[in-house]
Amino acid sequence: MSQQLEHTYTLECKRHTLAHLLAKAVIDLYPHAKLTLGPAIENGFYYDIDFSGGEAPGDEDLKKIQKGMKKQLGQWTSFEHKEVSADEAREAFKDNPYKLELIEEIDNKDEVITLYTAGVGTKAEFTDLCRGGHSENPAEEIVADSFKLDKIAGAYWRGDEKNTMLTRIYGLAFDNKEELDAYLAQLEEAKKRDHRKLGKELGLFSFSELVGPGLPLWSPKGTILRQEIDAFVQELRHQKGYQHVTIPHLAKKSLYETSGHWNKYSEDLFKVRAKEDADDHEEYVLKPMNCPHHTQIFDSELRSYKDLPQRYAETTMVYRAEQSGELAGLTRVLSITQDDAHVFCRESQLRDEIEAIWDIVNDFYEKFGFDLQVRLSFSDPEAPDKYLGDPATWEETEALMKQVAEDRQADYFIGIGEASFYAPKLDFMAKDSIGRTHQVATIQLDRLMPERFKLACVNEHGDKEPVVMIHAAIAGSLERFTAVLIEHCAGKFPLRFSPVQLAVIPVADAHHEYAKEVAATLHSAGFRVELYDENDSMGKKIRTAKHAKLPYFIVLGDKEVADNTVTLESRDTGDSTVLPLTELGAKLQGEL
Amino acid sequence: MSQQLEHTYTLECKRHTLAHLLAKAVIDLYPHAKLTLGPAIENGFYYDIDFSGGEAPGDEDLKKIQKGMKKQLGQWTSFEHKEVSADEAREAFKDNPYKLELIEEIDNKDEVITLYTAGVGTKAEFTDLCRGGHSENPAEEIVADSFKLDKIAGAYWRGDEKNTMLTRIYGLAFDNKEELDAYLAQLEEAKKRDHRKLGKELGLFSFSELVGPGLPLWSPKGTILRQEIDAFVQELRHQKGYQHVTIPHLAKKSLYETSGHWNKYSEDLFKVRAKEDADDHEEYVLKPMNCPHHTQIFDSELRSYKDLPQRYAETTMVYRAEQSGELAGLTRVLSITQDDAHVFCRESQLRDEIEAIWDIVNDFYEKFGFDLQVRLSFSDPEAPDKYLGDPATWEETEALMKQVAEDRQADYFIGIGEASFYAPKLDFMAKDSIGRTHQVATIQLDRLMPERFKLACVNEHGDKEPVVMIHAAIAGSLERFTAVLIEHCAGKFPLRFSPVQLAVIPVADAHHEYAKEVAATLHSAGFRVELYDENDSMGKKIRTAKHAKLPYFIVLGDKEVADNTVTLESRDTGDSTVLPLTELGAKLQGEL
Repeated sequence: MSQQLEHTYTLECKRHTLAHLLAKAVIDLYPHAKLTLGPAIENGFYYDIDFSGGEAPGDEDLKKIQKGMKKQLGQWTSFEHKEVSADEAREAFKDNPYKLELIEEIDNKDEVITLYTAGVGTKAEFTDLCRGGHSENPAEEIVADSFKLDKIAGAYWRGDEKNTMLTRIYGLAFDNKEELDAYLAQLEEAKKRDHRKLGKELGLFSFSELVGPGLPLWSPKGTILRQEIDAFVQELRHQKGYQHVTIPHLAKKSLYETSGHWNKYSEDLFKVRAKEDADDHEEYVLKPMNCPHHTQIFDSELRSYKDLPQRYAETTMVYRAEQSGELAGLTRVLSITQDDAHVFCRESQLRDEIEAIWDIVNDFYEKFGFDLQVRLSFSDPEAPDKYLGDPATWEETEALMKQVAEDRQADYFIGIGEASFYAPKLDFMAKDSIGRTHQVATIQLDRLMPERFKLACVNEHGDKEPVVMIHAAIAGSLERFTAVLIEHCAGKFPLRFSPVQLAVIPVADAHHEYAKEVAATLHSAGFRVELYDENDSMGKKIRTAKHAKLPYFIVLGDKEVADNTVTLESRDTGDSTVLPLTELGAKLQGEL
Repeated sequence: MSQQLEHTYTLECKRHTLAHLLAKAVIDLYPHAKLTLGPAIENGFYYDIDFSGGEAPGDEDLKKIQKGMKKQLGQWTSFEHKEVSADEAREAFKDNPYKLELIEEIDNKDEVITLYTAGVGTKAEFTDLCRGGHSENPAEEIVADSFKLDKIAGAYWRGDEKNTMLTRIYGLAFDNKEELDAYLAQLEEAKKRDHRKLGKELGLFSFSELVGPGLPLWSPKGTILRQEIDAFVQELRHQKGYQHVTIPHLAKKSLYETSGHWNKYSEDLFKVRAKEDADDHEEYVLKPMNCPHHTQIFDSELRSYKDLPQRYAETTMVYRAEQSGELAGLTRVLSITQDDAHVFCRESQLRDEIEAIWDIVNDFYEKFGFDLQVRLSFSDPEAPDKYLGDPATWEETEALMKQVAEDRQADYFIGIGEASFYAPKLDFMAKDSIGRTHQVATIQLDRLMPERFKLACVNEHGDKEPVVMIHAAIAGSLERFTAVLIEHCAGKFPLRFSPVQLAVIPVADAHHEYAKEVAATLHSAGFRVELYDENDSMGKKIRTAKHAKLPYFIVLGDKEVADNTVTLESRDTGDSTVLPLTELGAKLQGEL
């Protein structure tokens, strides 16, 4: 086990141990509570508990429960377990229908039943039905102020809405207080930057009950942001020889039967029905991805090896049928705008094409100040059956990817078993300004889809030669990337991406004419500028510009009018610069 | 009746008369034939005939039938009619089940049954069941060489595929030979320019059986053409203060219930189904138009009268469930890309907004050399029940539209009864280079949808004031406009819109280096250029450039290399110009 994995395991054991400790503290305070399940999760743990037999705790009771946990932690100097028979287990939990249901299941599968006990012989002694994975000496290993009960929520028994609603108590837990505090600060900061909140404040997007959840409507401002992000991707791609194509958003079922999506993902596809009495009863599908359509453009002509690589880019929506309950802001939507691209090339061209895409990914994320790490998502040698194709080709491709990563001196790690079933991948992770990591761009090799669609070129010898396909998204989902970007820069977009780039603020009526001239000059130089010529106070106008997080605002008073200058106030540096109007455009252009 | 309408009616009578004449000539040659129905249509007439009782004519027999028609025309000096009882009619057509079915229907509706006879007392005498509408003296009115039998096709009795397949004989007919010849020449020219043929030759778009008919796939070249057309529309709009918005391609059924589309057009909507076991069984609809979504963007904020007009533009696909049999090339597709826009404004702003859109329409069509005519699509005063809203408002709006048309000195005519049920419209007709007319841009006022969605602004008095909506498309459907444009300019797109703008052709190997330099210079100046550096002959390279209909190609030989010049050959003028490489970019830029 690597050091990193070992650390992850140890932390998970602590979190799992804390779930037991939580249960013990609850049961002391609420003897009628019936415990159900309590796992470790990302950043902490939870326990689902049925309080229906009496009083249930509220948020205000978390402190009290937490105090109980801390008090007893000192006495949990060991974690002991014993194997029991199903009947022994049933006897131990005879008053708890949830545990009895679990015991029944374990018994039916003929698996070993174990009980875990901590704090043996003390008042803190507590036994639970469990599979194990705890700290061996909690009192010593777990720092008392490294955890915190967080919140209470409802949860159905086993996640099924037909079952009883239980009370879920969440806790946060880390190795030490510093890490817990850092995480709490990150949460606090994330809340302030929440893209749903900022998106509304900055007027970027909205949702309509009539249109439905998961279907964002982008205002003019939000559309500028989206378009600038996409234009930047396309500029970078254009330099590498990519060309745009255009496809419809639906296709006959037959396209996805050939691609294999119909069989594998039919559940998540949106099916489209034409009129009932149509001549053809063919079913249509709203595209869940663009690759099958793009293969058909490649295949619309006979391709010579001289025409390769063909590099098709298209920013377009794909559709995945998520349940309404899963939809949240821009991070989970029903229609996802992908800045998608597919390269059709020969085996010998793979390396150059991967490098070109990697360059684009680097340039793109650097522009926004994200740190990038790449995961080489490789096959699992212990599960060779999971992967299609020749093992020698896999080995070769993975070696190639690793070599590219090495040669580029990239910050990379290998993710064993993270490959798709048809090929290894390069998955990029972006670390944002408050330390969170987001999976973003991806480069995926694909030999399977070309095979299914029989894609080939005519090679130097006049023979048909199968082509390879590379799937590549840079921003990935524009909705998700926009959400990440909003939170990363707290709504303070770089000049190029700001829906409004400058406000022009005349101090008094006498300066309105000059303000109009300045605004017109900037507008015809291609800048997105707003003129604040309302009868508001200076203070209010400046607050408005700051609230809108504009990169710059320009104040114009007597002096500016007299000198034909502008006073430029910068959002990012806080600096105020006086410069001639004639130099303003060039200064801003320089920043772009 | 206006002179134009009167002429249209007279021509239709001639065509209808010719359908009878066709029937008479057929029955003489094929006595077993059973006549069914034979109407006048655009450009001519047809007759559907059941030949199943014996021999059926083929294309090679059309001349013979036409000869029969011409021979008998001279004897048709009158067209007489008499009313008969149902029984008399049945007796007259007792051997013709089709006519008997028609008689039955007329009888059931208690309508008068009439028989029409021409050529009374001659060998050319012929009687048919008919409602009338013929030339009174065909021999005198119809010019013998003003018509021509055109083609034979299959057609189901009454258009229903469950019925017998009949033989349809088509004829073309005009007032005189000159008009017939002009139409035949237009047909011939149109065939050469057929956008399906040229689209394939120029590699602009393709169809895939797996994706389905009516769902075009746009190649890189076709996508450039589309994008340039759209970019031009957006440039013109940008000058008038339009802003882009972005909406998803689907919405809950409820959006269309509110807009009224669900009740009115449910049959033509694509219904979308998420997974069967989803929490919500809400049905989604693939958007048939963009206006309902755009109302939701308008309605996402409280709007002050100061924020009006809000002008939203978006080029996006809408979906109409057409039957596969109706789909043809780009003119009828399942997913239609509209360059759509919606203006939300006050009544007092209507005129300025209409003028602004009209300017855009003019500039757009002028660029491509189309002649524009506008139809003022007004309400029918004889059918006031067809229209929603206050008659005084209708009158006012129509007067406003007429005034604008007058003031602009537009080439306009009034289409009584062509208004939509919610408001009058301006419909633009473009005449193409071979004389065909296409309905293109449209400006539609709409007070109904704002009412249904309760759209309002807060006015100067702090009161809610209903807003008006204007729907405006410039190119209309990008697919259809592209088809029209391809045929209009026979694939020879103006420089700006050409997917490839220039080819660079080195005469021999020795000129390759310089050719590369020229191509690179043009590329970095933003031109779309192809370098023909294959080992083909000069002749072949030039043929390739001409076949691709490139606006220019550049030939580079010893002289050009020595002088640092280029020889520029123009597609449109046929001229060949030598100019310094340094001046090439500016010359081309000037043309753009």
